Amino acid sequence: MSPKRPLILITNDDGISSKGIKALLEAVKEFGDIVVVAPDSAQSGMGHAITINEPLRLSPSRLFDEVTAYSCSGTPVDCVKLGVYEVLHRKPDLVLSGINHGANTSSNVLYSGTMSAAVEAAMEGIPSVGFSLCNFDSDADFSASISVVKNVVSQVLVHEMMARTCLNVNIPDVSIGDLKEIKICRQAHAFWEDRFDKREDQFGKPYYWLTGEFLEQDKAEDTDLYWIDKGHPTIVPTQFDMTSYKSIKELENWDL
Amino acid sequence: MSPKRPLILITNDDGISSKGIKALLEAVKEFGDIVVVAPDSAQSGMGHAITINEPLRLSPSRLFDEVTAYSCSGTPVDCVKLGVYEVLHRKPDLVLSGINHGANTSSNVLYSGTMSAAVEAAMEGIPSVGFSLCNFDSDADFSASISVVKNVVSQVLVHEMMARTCLNVNIPDVSIGDLKEIKICRQAHAFWEDRFDKREDQFGKPYYWLTGEFLEQDKAEDTDLYWIDKGHPTIVPTQFDMTSYKSIKELENWDL
Repeated sequence: MSPKRPLILITNDDGISSKGIKALLEAVKEFGDIVVVAPDSAQSGMGHAITINEPLRLSPSRLFDEVTAYSCSGTPVDCVKLGVYEVLHRKPDLVLSGINHGANTSSNVLYSGTMSAAVEAAMEGIPSVGFSLCNFDSDADFSASISVVKNVVSQVLVHEMMARTCLNVNIPDVSIGDLKEIKICRQAHAFWEDRFDKREDQFGKPYYWLTGEFLEQDKAEDTDLYWIDKGHPTIVPTQFDMTSYKSIKELENWDL
Repeated sequence: MSPKRPLILITNDDGISSKGIKALLEAVKEFGDIVVVAPDSAQSGMGHAITINEPLRLSPSRLFDEVTAYSCSGTPVDCVKLGVYEVLHRKPDLVLSGINHGANTSSNVLYSGTMSAAVEAAMEGIPSVGFSLCNFDSDADFSASISVVKNVVSQVLVHEMMARTCLNVNIPDVSIGDLKEIKICRQAHAFWEDRFDKREDQFGKPYYWLTGEFLEQDKAEDTDLYWIDKGHPTIVPTQFDMTSYKSIKELENWDL
């Protein structure tokens, strides 16, 4: 690899054979030398999970022409750790995750394997971005997403990323001609009101599928949900200090 | 159940048969009516993972005398969701998670199944606390932890929990007589420098165990790591808005 071109590690959570990771690779191959380390199967909803109670497998993949790629038995966060410490043996210049099939707006960032991979990179001091298209279809059209990825990555490469921060980029499900300007936002407050679909197996024993409804309680104009609904790509700068600073003083008044 | 006693949902990430969850139950049974929904096996490191690609199992457990309990095939976050929506069919008054076998200080909160269960409860508007003992031993001594749990839970029940906040309580591995006062802290900046232990299976194919070293870069006096090292239990009030507000203005200067 040329020493002048940035080294870009790519991962995702939909698995190495998904359409979204191929679209991400196509979008950024002009910007640097690419190495892919991605899950061998779908890892949606894995959040910041790591694999500590079983060993990990890492297998060379020939899915992408002229790109070094490995599939991994673990989670997206495992892929970043294996990519940095076992495949590259150095920090890459950039970690990119996605393009996710489905939105990672609002508090979904906490459940998202795509974003957890980006957060993991940020924790290790590596600039990183997670990309998500607001369409769950496995054959979704990534044309508009590719345009947004090129725009964002070209800017990441000329700016210094803010310390301990990564970018959460969501792209509305629109055609490339209908793309509006990118909006910088905060994470909306919203949550899933869960339901479980209870069924019985062939032995009469119950099992449950997680389902539910997304409750958008926060429609403020500075949120990702507000702008995505209006057809704008959104960027939420994302950090990983979960301290509630404003609660510290209140807690100090408790009789602990 | 008496309508006057608070309804407390208990979960953990070490599994329903761990010593830590039994210690938690013993500590709080005087405070309310308890229902346990906990993983059927160890779920350490699962972070905020949810199970969406396979169904969940939920089985009555007779592990605890006079307490309704279920073991669940899923993650700690799944346990909270199943507990609220499928077992209780209402929000409990309090969700408690732990007592974890091992510290969840610093940025380990992101990997922690124990804390992710507490965060999930907070996202659903339920007061919640995660407890962790700084000792990984499966037969650790929880005497000091039980004392801290009683102290914290009694205070949570008389105060209104701050909105969208839960408590991350870490307890040093000391005897009950050596317990010092509880300190309210922020999450320290620290991270794992990973390594992988590479081995070969019986067919000569490689596999990897995740290992590593915890790098404490942040020894400031307002952090959980600082006080845990000095033998104090710590509480970090924990929220789930991951927006980096201070980066929003900087990003607005990028040429996006």
